[in-house]
Amino acid sequence: MGQRSTEPPISWLMHAALSRPKLISLAAGFTDSASLPVAEARAALNQVLRSPKTGQPALQYGSTAGDPVLRKLTAEYLRKLDLGGTSCRRPQNQGQRHAVSPEIYSPERLLITSGSQQLLYMTTEALCDEGDIVLVEDPTYFVYLGILQSRGLRARTVRLERDGLDLAHLESVLQSLKRTGELRRVKLFYLVSYFQNPTGITTSFEKKCGLLKLLKKFERAVGHPIYLLEDAAYRELSFSAGIKGRDALPRVQVDRQVGTTVSPPSALAVPGAAERVIYAGTFSKPFATGVRVGYGVLPEPVFSAVKHIKGNHDFGTSNLLQHLVARALASGIYGRHVARLQKRYAHKARVMKRAIEKHFPPAVEWWEPEGGLYFWARLPRNVPTGVKSKVFQTALKNDVLYVPGEICYADDPARRKPNHEMRISFGNASEKDIREGIKRLGKVLKKFV
Amino acid sequence: MGQRSTEPPISWLMHAALSRPKLISLAAGFTDSASLPVAEARAALNQVLRSPKTGQPALQYGSTAGDPVLRKLTAEYLRKLDLGGTSCRRPQNQGQRHAVSPEIYSPERLLITSGSQQLLYMTTEALCDEGDIVLVEDPTYFVYLGILQSRGLRARTVRLERDGLDLAHLESVLQSLKRTGELRRVKLFYLVSYFQNPTGITTSFEKKCGLLKLLKKFERAVGHPIYLLEDAAYRELSFSAGIKGRDALPRVQVDRQVGTTVSPPSALAVPGAAERVIYAGTFSKPFATGVRVGYGVLPEPVFSAVKHIKGNHDFGTSNLLQHLVARALASGIYGRHVARLQKRYAHKARVMKRAIEKHFPPAVEWWEPEGGLYFWARLPRNVPTGVKSKVFQTALKNDVLYVPGEICYADDPARRKPNHEMRISFGNASEKDIREGIKRLGKVLKKFV
Repeated sequence: MGQRSTEPPISWLMHAALSRPKLISLAAGFTDSASLPVAEARAALNQVLRSPKTGQPALQYGSTAGDPVLRKLTAEYLRKLDLGGTSCRRPQNQGQRHAVSPEIYSPERLLITSGSQQLLYMTTEALCDEGDIVLVEDPTYFVYLGILQSRGLRARTVRLERDGLDLAHLESVLQSLKRTGELRRVKLFYLVSYFQNPTGITTSFEKKCGLLKLLKKFERAVGHPIYLLEDAAYRELSFSAGIKGRDALPRVQVDRQVGTTVSPPSALAVPGAAERVIYAGTFSKPFATGVRVGYGVLPEPVFSAVKHIKGNHDFGTSNLLQHLVARALASGIYGRHVARLQKRYAHKARVMKRAIEKHFPPAVEWWEPEGGLYFWARLPRNVPTGVKSKVFQTALKNDVLYVPGEICYADDPARRKPNHEMRISFGNASEKDIREGIKRLGKVLKKFV
Repeated sequence: MGQRSTEPPISWLMHAALSRPKLISLAAGFTDSASLPVAEARAALNQVLRSPKTGQPALQYGSTAGDPVLRKLTAEYLRKLDLGGTSCRRPQNQGQRHAVSPEIYSPERLLITSGSQQLLYMTTEALCDEGDIVLVEDPTYFVYLGILQSRGLRARTVRLERDGLDLAHLESVLQSLKRTGELRRVKLFYLVSYFQNPTGITTSFEKKCGLLKLLKKFERAVGHPIYLLEDAAYRELSFSAGIKGRDALPRVQVDRQVGTTVSPPSALAVPGAAERVIYAGTFSKPFATGVRVGYGVLPEPVFSAVKHIKGNHDFGTSNLLQHLVARALASGIYGRHVARLQKRYAHKARVMKRAIEKHFPPAVEWWEPEGGLYFWARLPRNVPTGVKSKVFQTALKNDVLYVPGEICYADDPARRKPNHEMRISFGNASEKDIREGIKRLGKVLKKFV
C-alpha cells in the first residue's frame, strides 16, 4: 500500500477512554459539552431552513472555495480580530504602527475547509514533496506530526520560550540546515501561535515579526519561498479577550502591560509578510466542534493550489454547515457564544489550577495557560510519562488519562526526545471530574516523583 | 510546490456558467434544487437539536470512522439494497443463488466520509504510490481523473458496452500490462457502476462477477491485491427502483426481464470477493448535496489505512450532518424523499428525451439513461466538441453549456482520445430550461453536423 500512516496516538487514547467506564479523561481535546450551543444552533438552522428560498442553497452543492457570504463575514471577522491588536514594534522604534494592508483580509484570499485540520493537511500536501522538511515548535500539535509522517516529510524542531518561539534557536537551526545543504528542502514553518497545543504558550507579535524576518533572510539562499503556516485554532479561547455582544465580532482588548495575556495580532498583520503567511482558523472550537467549519487565508499561488486539492478531496465543505455558521456570525449568536465560552473555560482553568496546586508534588513544574484547553506539566527528567511508563500505566489503573508529552515531539536527530511531560486538558471534563482527575493524577505523581 | 494539480475542468465550467447570466447550464452535476428536502431537513434537525441530551453529541467531536448509529443504519440500508437484487449467475448454472455473507455489511467495515468523493480520494491515497496504474472505464468520472493526475498516477482505460464494462477488452488490457511488466503497478480498478457518469451506463451484476474474477486471476501474477473501487454515487437515482415508504429503506424491484433497468447488487454481493471490493456510497445525491455525507465499505487492511488518513485529513466528518442523516434514515424521511426524487428525475429525463428527439439532428447518436443525471451524445467522429471547438464556442455564444466528452477520457497511450461527445445533464435545470437548452443545442448541432 502506498500510505505510510500508522495508528495515530489519538485513536488509541480514545479507545482507552472508551474501554474504562469510570475513567476520567484529561487527555482529549474535546470542548466543553455542557456549553455547546444546542438552542443557538437550532435557532440558526431554523432561520436557514425557514423557506425554500433560503433553504435550497444551503442544501445544494456550493463552490470549492466556500460560500461567498461566509467568506466575506469571515474575512471581516478576522480583520477585526487583528486590527484590535498591537502592531509590529522594533526595539529601536517603539510605538510605531505599521498600517496593515486591507487586501490581506479579502474574501478572495479566503478558503472554507472542513475544520482547520483539513487546511493544515491540504497546505502541506500543496507545498511539500516527499523528503522535504517542515520546521515545527518543540513540542507541537501531535496530529500535525501525523500528517508529516504520513506524507514522508521530515521535521526540524525549534525550542519554545514562555513568550513563544526561541528565535535564536530558530536562527541556529536554519544556519545548520544551510551548512548541511538541507535548507533547500525547507518549505514551511508550522506554528501553533495562540495558547499552543500542547504547552499553552502564545507566540508574541514581536516574535512573529522576527520569525518572518528570519524566514525571509534564509529563503534568499534557497530561491523558493519558505511559508509560515500559522495555526490559530485556539485563538478565540482566550481567558482575557473581550467580546462586544451586539457586534457579533470579538474585540481583542489591547493591554500593552500584560503582553500575551491578550491575543496578539496574527502574522498576517506583520507588514510586508502577507505573501508568506498562511493563516488557519476555525469556527469549530469556538462554536461547536460537531460543526466542522474552518478556514484559511492564503497568498497566491498557494490559494489556487489548495483550492484545486480541495476540489479533489471533496469539492467543497457542506453548504448547510457554512450557512449555519454564516447565520450564527451575522446574527450575533456566535459572538455571544464565544464570550460565554471564554468565561466558562477561564473558570474551568481556575478549577484545574487550584486542584493542581493542592495535589501535585512540588517537583512537578506546570504552566498556567491564559487561554486554550491545556495545562502542561513537566516531571523531573528521570521520570518518564510515556504510554509504557509506570506513571501512565498507574494513572490508567487509577482511571485517569492524560496525553504523554513525548507524542507531541517530532523525531529530530538534533536532540533526544523529551519524555517526562504531560498535557492535561480541562476542555471536556466537568468541574467535579477535573478536581477528582487531578487528585488521582496527583496521587500517582507523588508515588513516582 | 509539491502538488501537481492543475485547474480542474469543473472549475472553469462553473466560472463560465456564472459569467453569462442567461446561460442555461446542462453541464453541472448539480441535483434538482426545487426538490431539495428543506422542510424535511428542518424537521430532522429540530429533532436532533430538541434537547441538550440529543443535541450535545451532535455538536461535539465524534470518532474518525463516524457516528456508530449512522454506521449501523447505513450498513443495514446497504444490505437491503443488495439483497433485493439478483445473485451471481454463471451461464452453466442458471438461477443458482449464492448466499451473501452478512459480515460484509458489518458497521465495523463501514467508514463515514465527507461525500463519497473523499472516500475516492483517500482510498486512492492509501493504495497507490506515484507512478502506479489505476484501471478506469473509458470514459469515466472526470473529477476522479483529477485525483489521479494530482497524485502522479497513470490510468489505463477499459471500453464500455451498453451493459457495462467490456470484459474481453479488460482481459486484453491486463494481458498487455503483464507482457510489458507493468501489471505490478496496477493497484486498483475504479468503476462507476450505476448510471455511470458520464454515459449513464450500468454495469450488470454478471459483469461485476466477471470483472472480479479477472482481477483475481491477474493479481496472482503480481503477488499483491488488485482492488475494485466501486463508485455507486448514482445508485439510488434509478428511474425504476421502488421504495417502501414506511420502511425508510429503498427496496430494489427485481425484474429479471429488463436486466439493468433495475439496480443490480453491488460488487460486495459477488461471492468470495468481498476482500477485494471497496464500495463508495453517498447520501448527498439522493438526499441533499449540501449535506456532504458519504460512506465506504472497506476490507482490512484498507479500512484501517483509510481511517488513519481520515484522521490526518479532518479526523471525522461533521457529527451534526451525520446525526441529521441518521435521523432522516431512521424516521423514514430519507426513504420517502428518495422515492419522490426518483419520480422527479424520471420525469425530467423524459422531458429531455422528448426535446432531444425533436431538436437533435439524426446524425447525433444519444443514449437514454435509466437513472442518474445524464444523457450522453455522440457526434460524427469529425466534429469535435471540446472547449476550443466551434460546437462548444457556438453553444456558449448561444447561452447553453454542456460537458465536453473529452474531459471524461483519461490519457492512455493505447488509444486516441475521443473528442466528439458531450454529457448533458437534466439534474439542476428546470423543465423549461431543459426544453430551451436542448433547443439551443440542437440548433448549434444542426449547423455543424
